[in-house]
Amino acid sequence: MKVSTTLAATPGMETSKLSSRGFPTVVDVDLGDRSYPIYIGSGLLNQSDLLQRHIHGKRVLVVTNTTVAPLYLDKVVSALTNGNPNVTVENVILPDGEKYKDTDTLMKVFDKAIESQLDRQCTFVALGGGVIGDMCGYAASSFLRGVNFIQIPTTVMAQVDSSVGGKTGINHRLGKNLIGAFYQPQCVLIDTDTLNTLPDRELASGLAEVIKYGLIRDAPFFEWQEKNIQALMSRDPDAFAYTIKRSCENKAEVVSQDEKETGLRAIGNLGHTFGHAIETSCGYGHWLHGEAVAAGTVMAADMSYRLGWIDESVVERVNNILKQAKLPTTPPEMMTVDMFKSAMAIDKKVADGILRLILLKGPLGSCVITGDYDRKALDETLRAFCKS
Amino acid sequence: MKVSTTLAATPGMETSKLSSRGFPTVVDVDLGDRSYPIYIGSGLLNQSDLLQRHIHGKRVLVVTNTTVAPLYLDKVVSALTNGNPNVTVENVILPDGEKYKDTDTLMKVFDKAIESQLDRQCTFVALGGGVIGDMCGYAASSFLRGVNFIQIPTTVMAQVDSSVGGKTGINHRLGKNLIGAFYQPQCVLIDTDTLNTLPDRELASGLAEVIKYGLIRDAPFFEWQEKNIQALMSRDPDAFAYTIKRSCENKAEVVSQDEKETGLRAIGNLGHTFGHAIETSCGYGHWLHGEAVAAGTVMAADMSYRLGWIDESVVERVNNILKQAKLPTTPPEMMTVDMFKSAMAIDKKVADGILRLILLKGPLGSCVITGDYDRKALDETLRAFCKS
Repeated sequence: MKVSTTLAATPGMETSKLSSRGFPTVVDVDLGDRSYPIYIGSGLLNQSDLLQRHIHGKRVLVVTNTTVAPLYLDKVVSALTNGNPNVTVENVILPDGEKYKDTDTLMKVFDKAIESQLDRQCTFVALGGGVIGDMCGYAASSFLRGVNFIQIPTTVMAQVDSSVGGKTGINHRLGKNLIGAFYQPQCVLIDTDTLNTLPDRELASGLAEVIKYGLIRDAPFFEWQEKNIQALMSRDPDAFAYTIKRSCENKAEVVSQDEKETGLRAIGNLGHTFGHAIETSCGYGHWLHGEAVAAGTVMAADMSYRLGWIDESVVERVNNILKQAKLPTTPPEMMTVDMFKSAMAIDKKVADGILRLILLKGPLGSCVITGDYDRKALDETLRAFCKS
Repeated sequence: MKVSTTLAATPGMETSKLSSRGFPTVVDVDLGDRSYPIYIGSGLLNQSDLLQRHIHGKRVLVVTNTTVAPLYLDKVVSALTNGNPNVTVENVILPDGEKYKDTDTLMKVFDKAIESQLDRQCTFVALGGGVIGDMCGYAASSFLRGVNFIQIPTTVMAQVDSSVGGKTGINHRLGKNLIGAFYQPQCVLIDTDTLNTLPDRELASGLAEVIKYGLIRDAPFFEWQEKNIQALMSRDPDAFAYTIKRSCENKAEVVSQDEKETGLRAIGNLGHTFGHAIETSCGYGHWLHGEAVAAGTVMAADMSYRLGWIDESVVERVNNILKQAKLPTTPPEMMTVDMFKSAMAIDKKVADGILRLILLKGPLGSCVITGDYDRKALDETLRAFCKS
């Protein structure tokens, strides 16, 4: 395992200043012959060579949605074709939202690729948030049994988490991400300027995953966030450049050690088992993914405290930072204990009937993946957060 | 690359006699950490330990169809559970036929797996022909981003070809197998007794792939087939045991060298580009896959001869053996030149706009994969086999 963070253009320059100068920071995801770079910086969509060096055939399909297409599709097509007349670009524009992360919408990608007679040398480009990245990646993994793909994430959620690590897939009416593939991109290109058009609620949603990295493995990063949460909420570019880089480094380190989530990688799901239950039970799209994760993280912290595994102060700090990020700290009122229990029973982390949870244990920045916990603590947490 | 053929129970015994004694012949597919054995023999479904050694979790989902379920489902459930009370088996019975190899039918597998709350430790078992194997394998590759699976092929087509090598997938209305994954099973279990219930037309369809192996890389096997075609048509068990073993060895050797079909493996598609065009244009299910491949193989041989790449005698021998196998040697009358051309344009072997074909070249048992051929020869072949 090796994660190196280098500056593509000017080694030695201070990372957090780079965003405004157009040089990308590069975080490498080390996965042997499936390794790839994450480029992070301001104005990267104006640097055609970054994208073009990862396009091998002559045909590209950009997969995006109705919200992102008017903002960035032309820019991406230019980046792909500038000075490169051999490349032709098709696009498919999907409806926006988690509730469209399903087979019917996925088929629209296959339909477009097949009607356009794309071949195995083609590249799929995901331009959008986590839903677009997950669907485009899964489509790329399955089209002609696998073609190249590139992630261009345009939300904090996708930039700090979902675009890195190769988890792709779609939802089933009974549960999130139950159908999919581990499939790595050729590169991830994060142009931090795309955050300028991101709604506040989406921005906050992404911060839930940023806060997660601090809690599960990076106490100094959590402490940095506590000091800089207001800078992040006011979209300070330097604060965001650092946040994205540090999050990608955390993610890349974990993924390099456990690509297919046989163990360690599951720590990235802190708060997600409770969160997925909220998303599934409320109907996809009512709560943003990060909002559900935020409430789920509070529940996981609560349960960890009930088990005697963390100090009360950690629970308070979790609550505080999420509130400052304007994220929910309790599940929606309609959620019942039974709704949690039935949705959690089909979580991917169930193994031979036992639900494993990611819980905090020990000092700040430490967690465990375990099915070995007192069921009473889980029941108490569910009852504490649900009216019935 | 290494392909070893061993006898699991009694090394040194003569292979072709083994089928009647219940000892499996084993052909190993060597793919590093994705290697697996193919067990071949009579009565193997009565040997519980063969299957059970490849089941790791406590839950199994058998995927089969309305034709095969009444014949073999109980037997397979017994083989999985005999002396093994910890394992529980679910099943999903799909409609039978190539026309159901689509997303709607695939979703029935996911629905059953999710409703049964199967987890990542579960195993999917494909019990049936090529359509079941392809769909079950693709479902296994995608369910919770990948679970174990086992192939129990019950047709000649599946036993000699489709169950080996990890190609899985479904059809799109515009073309065959355009959506899928490379995903290797834990083992392939071929009980040759299952051929006793196979309709004649299905049996002949499988022989088209057997004949293919001789033509592309194994002249002695082709010559053996010419001598033994009547024994095969009358279902002689020893002839079939040898045919299945030799076919699996050929397939395993090719797959070991080129798992993801970046080159060599494409030779297994002799006749398939023409054949897929027939299947797609006629509507899935009217012609069996092997019937379409048979006509396609004659067309590939015809085109190879027009290019001056093979002797006329090879064309004649191809025609003769296919006719003796009661397989078609011309496409259906409704096929036009334009139908072939438009279907072939979306074949997976198109690379940057150029259609590569597998053609015979040189002495019997030699072929090439090439986009470098005189387009006139292709046109002449299409015109020779189509009325318009």
